[in-house]
Amino acid sequence: MTESNGVGSKPGRRPRQSKTKEAILASARTRFARSGFDTTSIRSVAADTGVDSALVHHYFGTKRGLFIAAIALPADPAEVLEPVAAADNDDLGRALATAILGVWDSEDDEAVIAAFRSMNASGDTTLIGTFLLQVALRDVAKRVDSPVGSALERVNLVASQMAGLLLTRHILALEPLASMPVARVVDWVSPILQRYLTGPMPDGSD
Amino acid sequence: MTESNGVGSKPGRRPRQSKTKEAILASARTRFARSGFDTTSIRSVAADTGVDSALVHHYFGTKRGLFIAAIALPADPAEVLEPVAAADNDDLGRALATAILGVWDSEDDEAVIAAFRSMNASGDTTLIGTFLLQVALRDVAKRVDSPVGSALERVNLVASQMAGLLLTRHILALEPLASMPVARVVDWVSPILQRYLTGPMPDGSD
Repeated sequence: MTESNGVGSKPGRRPRQSKTKEAILASARTRFARSGFDTTSIRSVAADTGVDSALVHHYFGTKRGLFIAAIALPADPAEVLEPVAAADNDDLGRALATAILGVWDSEDDEAVIAAFRSMNASGDTTLIGTFLLQVALRDVAKRVDSPVGSALERVNLVASQMAGLLLTRHILALEPLASMPVARVVDWVSPILQRYLTGPMPDGSD
Repeated sequence: MTESNGVGSKPGRRPRQSKTKEAILASARTRFARSGFDTTSIRSVAADTGVDSALVHHYFGTKRGLFIAAIALPADPAEVLEPVAAADNDDLGRALATAILGVWDSEDDEAVIAAFRSMNASGDTTLIGTFLLQVALRDVAKRVDSPVGSALERVNLVASQMAGLLLTRHILALEPLASMPVARVVDWVSPILQRYLTGPMPDGSD
């Protein structure tokens, strides 16, 4: 499908195209928030919008691409977390801290704050949960399910520490945390994340 | 000063009284956000509002009382943190986790969310920082300044973990964290807070 000739070539095409895109994204937000990432299909989003699935694929590629567009992420989590996938289990905490804190530091604080605020706006909280657990941390979760069934609990706690760092370092800008070199923040939180991921459970199992 | 006869007794008294109160609280928010807790005086807030200091004292008691009213806290941090003051330094992490998570659990999630949202609304972020570092965690900070100069860094990190728990457990309601018994959350985070408060610094000093 060529770039310039996908949908028609009347003068009004561009505005209409962006209207359709927006409508698809709105349907996607509703679907993902209601049903989660796994059970939402491109087809259902297309049907809700009254367009063909092929058009959704054309605009957004995969379901993951659609999701990332729907929540307006500044970076693709798969790329950000590539070094985490390559890390040993003993080094997961440091790999995660390095990857995530690195992205936040590479963005303008303004961009990070805008993304957080828009995700945190009315009603979208389910989307953030879906993103954190079913997209961003899903591959990590698969690796830390020991004892069996503990993965989600472990990954929830990692999310709590990282969300708190986003809030206090970038949004509230607490000092000295906001001005701390990223390497020092990584040094502080790596053992914490590691403990959450592979340390003993509160009841003593591990 | 009697309750029912402080300011006058015309029929219009109550609405005017509450207008004055609101004006004082607005001035207080501006002052606290701009100058922090320590350098803000009751007198300056009264002057900004165009009322007498005595009236501010009458409505809100101490400066701490004014601050708590200004940020609409559901509980007085001094009361909440009383058991923390009584705890040994080795047990600070557990005492803090128990006290803070306990308050959040005792409130409706709605109330916690509303307080968070209103504090997090446009421009009020400095107020939250002031509250966390200069009011809520100030006494704890005095006890963990080892090596000298590390207290604020330690307390910032505690704030990051607790803010993240508020966000993920109560606002995003991530599962299983949102439904976890509070005692289990305390078990998870107590050693984390303790490490931040009294553990080794990233550079190896302690």
